[in-house]
Amino acid sequence: MLRAVELRDECVRILDQTKLPMEVCFEECRTPEEVAEALRRMKVRGAPLIGLAGAMTLALVARKNRAKDREEILRELKKTVGLLLRARPTGRDLYTLTERMLSVACRADDVTRELEEEVEKIQAAMEEISRRLGEIGGNLIEDGQCVLTHCNTGFLAAPGEGTALAAIKFAWRRGKKIRVLVTETRPLLQGARLTLWELAREGIPATLIVDSAAGYCMQRGMVHVVMVGADRILPDGSVINKIGTYTLAVLAKRHGIPFYAVAPLSTLDPRGEVIVEERGKEEVLPEDWRLEAEVFNPAFDLTPPELVTGIVTERGVLGPQEVGRLAKG
Amino acid sequence: MLRAVELRDECVRILDQTKLPMEVCFEECRTPEEVAEALRRMKVRGAPLIGLAGAMTLALVARKNRAKDREEILRELKKTVGLLLRARPTGRDLYTLTERMLSVACRADDVTRELEEEVEKIQAAMEEISRRLGEIGGNLIEDGQCVLTHCNTGFLAAPGEGTALAAIKFAWRRGKKIRVLVTETRPLLQGARLTLWELAREGIPATLIVDSAAGYCMQRGMVHVVMVGADRILPDGSVINKIGTYTLAVLAKRHGIPFYAVAPLSTLDPRGEVIVEERGKEEVLPEDWRLEAEVFNPAFDLTPPELVTGIVTERGVLGPQEVGRLAKG
Repeated sequence: MLRAVELRDECVRILDQTKLPMEVCFEECRTPEEVAEALRRMKVRGAPLIGLAGAMTLALVARKNRAKDREEILRELKKTVGLLLRARPTGRDLYTLTERMLSVACRADDVTRELEEEVEKIQAAMEEISRRLGEIGGNLIEDGQCVLTHCNTGFLAAPGEGTALAAIKFAWRRGKKIRVLVTETRPLLQGARLTLWELAREGIPATLIVDSAAGYCMQRGMVHVVMVGADRILPDGSVINKIGTYTLAVLAKRHGIPFYAVAPLSTLDPRGEVIVEERGKEEVLPEDWRLEAEVFNPAFDLTPPELVTGIVTERGVLGPQEVGRLAKG
Repeated sequence: MLRAVELRDECVRILDQTKLPMEVCFEECRTPEEVAEALRRMKVRGAPLIGLAGAMTLALVARKNRAKDREEILRELKKTVGLLLRARPTGRDLYTLTERMLSVACRADDVTRELEEEVEKIQAAMEEISRRLGEIGGNLIEDGQCVLTHCNTGFLAAPGEGTALAAIKFAWRRGKKIRVLVTETRPLLQGARLTLWELAREGIPATLIVDSAAGYCMQRGMVHVVMVGADRILPDGSVINKIGTYTLAVLAKRHGIPFYAVAPLSTLDPRGEVIVEERGKEEVLPEDWRLEAEVFNPAFDLTPPELVTGIVTERGVLGPQEVGRLAKG
């Protein structure tokens, strides 16, 4: 099985997603700085996968510092968490999972060993969550339907089979004749480069569109359900996800099309902080055009709860109010 | 003054827009087939400009066939119209203006001379219309406002100063401190490549965004008015325009932002035919990715009248009902 991130003896090995679909190649990140750089360049992306990569990095740091005293190891771990969070601030799972790792480290007898074990537990749990998201979300898709999805939410975004794409794959494997409408997802084209490739590997029929064609496709009755991932879910049920998600939700509402976000509960931020990363202009405007324009390049947007039909989590399909209760509980 | 199309002795000379913003270079189209190819490849684009290029092509055809008898010339002209309309079927002006040229040819004593004169009249009239669109539309933009625009609607799209961009330039030249939010306009990036370049030439402050960020920008209160062009206006006030326009109109409605289409009345189709050109997959999906996916690449979409605040024409700002009356009149 192809894994998008893996903890190895000397490194966190990542599948470099910026090379897809042309090449499947791996990069060995041997230091926290190399992982942070891989996150910034989006060689690894997808909120849950970023979270797992973060947890692995902490295990790697503990291992490389095992000769040092306990306090020093903890300092290294905390420094690493700060470094990683600065690299990709929006995805909530990185925060949730590195906090979990830190709290294990604080009470561990053998920090290295216990962090390594915790990474294994996290990974197994995430794979099980992905399986459940797939099943619960997949049951929302009916035979013959066309699902519109945005960005990439497959195994390149979350351990296991992913989130929204896990649901699509589950429905397909149950024999439902479905189609997927894939938005290319500018500026980095995760839909065109990653989702099409993942769907092709499964043989699931897919059609690529430019992001701005989603409205026209809905107008023509081509879309039955919208399923996306989530990088951060707020206690009021708002969904922070890849730029363009809000627009899809507004369009879905107008056309009476159900709109689901599919995500593990590790994506939930009980404090409700709105963090929207803004990325560099070079992702949108080629430098060799020598145009002096400004570029506004937010990587995410916020979809308010009234546009969200449901949030598919490992505990079932939740309405916005239910998310709020979970956040408090 | 830089002109996007020009009738010369032996050719229709076009500014090759596919080379912008890197290079300003011209191509000489010596036959109707060369013009049709330039249209197909969108070296010349923008509904009114395509219309003018079509009229020029007919004058060129008459000139090159002047030795032939009258009936033969008329046959050549009609054949040329069919060829051009097949190259870009959606933009209505090409139909309107080539019909006008054909009717001049049918009653002309000296077909060549009268078609040449008609081209000059059409061009002068279009430039005057652009001036009026600019003034009428420009008066809708208030000091300090940010205008969101889509695709390219400047002198590269319509003779004179363009349509929606003429309005923006007019407001700017009147000393209004405005900003323009420019959608890049996938797949061919007319916003990023052409509109940014036109605005930079005028010194008008512009910010580029990916198409899917428009909703987020409206949510953040960054947009005060949306102004786009139109390739075809139907008698019920529906606007067929660059793919993505419908989505912008839906978003503008949700946020209470006025949405204007700016276009000459030659864009109006009294018969109300809905023609949406679908273009090749290679515009969206690079061939060297070797992905076997389908691509749906509609170049236009349809915005229904209830989402259109007004249509800015040379006769003033019209509501959808008024367009219907004009279409009958």
